This record gives sequence, structure tokens and C-alpha cells, in this order.
Amino acid sequence: MPRITKKELQEFFDDKFPQMDFILEEFDEKSITVKQNISELNLRPGGTISGPTMMALADFAIYAAILREVGLVELAVTTSFNINFLKKPEATRDIFAKCKLLKCGKTLAIGEVSIFSEGIEAPVAHAVGTYSIPRNLTS
Amino acid sequence: MPRITKKELQEFFDDKFPQMDFILEEFDEKSITVKQNISELNLRPGGTISGPTMMALADFAIYAAILREVGLVELAVTTSFNINFLKKPEATRDIFAKCKLLKCGKTLAIGEVSIFSEGIEAPVAHAVGTYSIPRNLTS
Amino acid sequence: MPRITKKELQEFFDDKFPQMDFILEEFDEKSITVKQNISELNLRPGGTISGPTMMALADFAIYAAILREVGLVELAVTTSFNINFLKKPEATRDIFAKCKLLKCGKTLAIGEVSIFSEGIEAPVAHAVGTYSIPRNLTS
Amino acid sequence: MPRITKKELQEFFDDKFPQMDFILEEFDEKSITVKQNISELNLRPGGTISGPTMMALADFAIYAAILREVGLVELAVTTSFNINFLKKPEATRDIFAKCKLLKCGKTLAIGEVSIFSEGIEAPVAHAVGTYSIPRNLTS
Repeated sequence: MPRITKKELQEFFDDKFPQMDFILEEFDEKSITVKQNISELNLRPGGTISGPTMMALADFAIYAAILREVGLVELAVTTSFNINFLKKPEATRDIFAKCKLLKCGKTLAIGEVSIFSEGIEAPVAHAVGTYSIPRNLTS
Repeated sequence: MPRITKKELQEFFDDKFPQMDFILEEFDEKSITVKQNISELNLRPGGTISGPTMMALADFAIYAAILREVGLVELAVTTSFNINFLKKPEATRDIFAKCKLLKCGKTLAIGEVSIFSEGIEAPVAHAVGTYSIPRNLTS
Repeated sequence: MPRITKKELQEFFDDKFPQMDFILEEFDEKSITVKQNISELNLRPGGTISGPTMMALADFAIYAAILREVGLVELAVTTSFNINFLKKPEATRDIFAKCKLLKCGKTLAIGEVSIFSEGIEAPVAHAVGTYSIPRNLTS
Repeated sequence: MPRITKKELQEFFDDKFPQMDFILEEFDEKSITVKQNISELNLRPGGTISGPTMMALADFAIYAAILREVGLVELAVTTSFNINFLKKPEATRDIFAKCKLLKCGKTLAIGEVSIFSEGIEAPVAHAVGTYSIPRNLTS
């Protein structure tokens, strides 16, 4: 199966998940990068970005990386998710999640994600998530 | 240190996190229960509740359970978070997170959370999260 | 399917896993408790029990709890495992793992485990593990 | 502080952890690789390597990677550990764990590990572990 292009994936998300505000950034051979623009709603006291903001971004990046491989499967669902926060992200910088799939089988896919503040090399968080892929794909 | 009451905690959240829409429900000796009203924004294709909705609720329930013990510390932050999704939650039911602290030390606290659909006994998700507590509390 | 008894499970382990030194302790309605006698091999510098000793015990306790429900399935395998260490276990006390299943479906089971030092109430570690159960059981 | 060499680290392990049978393999700029020779004791029914064998190897690889950076600290301890099993490792091949540190702070270090069967490119497992580093190092 040929990989889904960035344009096809963006159209799928615009259509099916219109409320989402993630931006597909880079697609290279091994990874996908997704951007989240940071607004007041994503902040926490002390001038940092909330944990759930990073969780949602990482979860979405894995979903996007899986869809690129298996086709536009609406019904893939997260079955487990683990995240470690490494350093405080800066409230004034947008964040990026770079996802690489560790496995993409017929029924299960696992992705690894590093989250970065824009323009800073050391990651602020690292996540691993597992998705279940429904058996009868009609992509 | 006496425990924070539900009323004190609710006032703290209303003041510091006005955008949050979690509702403190039950406070018993060993656990705290927090409710999330489900709206369109929390849904995913196939009539289910999004993973990040449950992650955010579980993360918040742990935060609330820690504040009850250590005082109203704005700056506690999640350092790690793990969640397993057990069954598909029903899109038409609100969800509840029940958090029990596994440990509440001076600098680190760990909470365990079960998430339930309203009126259904078997949990839909189970999470464990770790928070770092800043050293100089001025509760 | 009737649950497997403690005696049946012990015989299965003695037969299939003769090198294991875990001891089935308690079987109650909701949980199984497994004991590990601590020897020199399980210790680490500073007089503590090694992390992998507790990981292996927790993993085994989940396996035992699953077999009790689904039958004597040799081929169930761990698919994910998460553990948090809560306090330093005492090197001079044996440890116990108490496992409660969060879910036991046809192809996937998830168990939660608390690990205790003998005679001490507060847990030293908490784990959650997922097992894949092969589809054609011939118990 | 200069990094610990492979020879220094091997001598430290031979001295302090004589019962361990892990072999330090590669040290490059960004990662450390540790080998585990597989014997009968590491196998499970169905001709696979036990989960706890891989957990112990991954945990050790993170410990080795941290010691290389911070010095020969006996008392560093695992505080959390998460592993996903990706495919069945072959019982007839030894396994390797390649660890890269995600963070190495003064009190906390986090490492990411991929585990491979000898001679096979796709990883069989992926782990992330957190260690607490005691404050007063006397290496």
C-alpha cells in the first residue's frame, strides 16, 4: 500500500476532526512532525505548558504516523500511552512532536514521540503510545 | 497539616484555573472523584470519547488528590504519566476519575486513577501519574 | 469456565516453569498474591532489592491472575509493562505481589499489582501489565 | 566531569555486581550497547525469551549509560520503568540493548532503550526508565 501523502492526511483531518488545531509539518522517510500553536488555554501557573497539551499532541502525532502507513482509518484507538516530562517547556514557544513508529502491524502499532519547544534542541517530553487498528480497513 | 476541604480546593481551581471544566465530586478518606461533562469536543469518530480527554481528566484528578494532602501548591507538575484504555467509553455518558494516592512524599507524589462512564461499574481506563512537588511550599 | 484452583495453578507452574521460585500465596475473589523469597541474588548495593526482581515478580503475578481466569495457557505473553517504585524495600524482608485484573478479555488482559515488603503496609512498588492471550485456547 | 570509559565501567560492575552476566559492548557518542547471552533460564514456553529477561537487560543498560555520565554511583535506583514488547525475540539469538539518555540531570536521569535479537534489524522491545541519582556523589 502506498503511503498517504501529507496533503491527503491534512484533508482527512480537516474533514473528520475539524476542531483539531494540530498542524502537519514535516514528513520524512522515518518520521512525522506535528506542530501545536500555544495559546493561553495551554498554559499552567508558573509560565509552563500543561501536561495534557503535550499528551494530546503526542497522541495525535502517533495517530497521524499510523494513518500514513495503514490508510485513513478513522477508528484506530489508543490502547496505552506513556509519557515522561524531561524539562519545563517555555510558555512563549510553540511545540512540535516528532513521531517515529516502532512497529506497525496489522492490528497494533506503536509509536515513539519526542516533543520539542520551537528552536530548542533538547526535548521537553518523550512519549510512547500504542494504537489498536480495526481489522477490516476500508481506506 | 490538615487536609484541604473540597470547598477550599474548588475555590482554588475556580481562581487559578478558570478555564477548567472539571467538577470535584466525592472526597472520601482514601480517594477523590472528579467529573468531566462530555461534549462534542471530547468525542471521536465511532461515538467514543477521545483518549486525551481521559488523560486530562486523570492528570487533573491526581493533581487534586495531591493538593488535598500537601496544600494549594500551584507549581506541582506532572513528571510521568501512564494510561491503559480498557474498554470503549460511551459517548452519551459523562466520565468520572477516581484517584487514590499511592505515595505522597515531600518532593514526589504518585496517584492511581480509575476512569468510569457514569452508571457503569467496569472502568474504561486506568492511569498512574507522578508529580513533582516544589520544595518550598507556602500553602 | 470455572476458575483454576491454586493447586492446579501450582502444579502447572511446577511442571512448565520448574526454575521459577515464586510461591502462590493467597487467592481471593478479586486478587492473587504471590511471594518471592529474597536471597543475595536479588539485592543491590545499599541493602535494597533490585528493580528487576520486583519487575519479574509483578509480571508473574499478572500471568498467574490471568491463567486463573482463562485457563492454563502457556503462550500468553506480556505486551507492555509499567512500574513505579514508591519506597525502598528492606533487604531483609521477603516481598509479595498482589494482583487484581483490570480487564480480562478474549485476546487482552490487564493487571494491576502492588508490591509489599513482608509485614509492612505501605506498598514499595506499583505495576500495570498487559498480556496478549492466544486465540485458540486448549486449556 | 570526563566520561567513564568502558574499561572503568566494566571493572566497576565486575567488582560491585559480580553475579551480573551483562556484557558491555559498544560505547559511542550517544549510546551504550549491552549484550545478554541467552540460556535456558531466559526462555519461556513457545521458544521465546522471557519478558523479565528483557526488562532486566534494559534496566541495566540505562544504569550503565547513566554511570558513564555521572560517575560510578552505586546507589542510583530505578524510580519508574516502562516497556513495550514489539515482536517475539528468537530463542536462539542473544539480545542487545542500546540505550540513549533522554535526560541526565543532577538528581534524575531518563534513558530510552531498544532491544534487538542478534543480527536482526527490527527491535523486539522498547523501554524507557527513570533513575534517581543520590545528591552527594562520592565516586
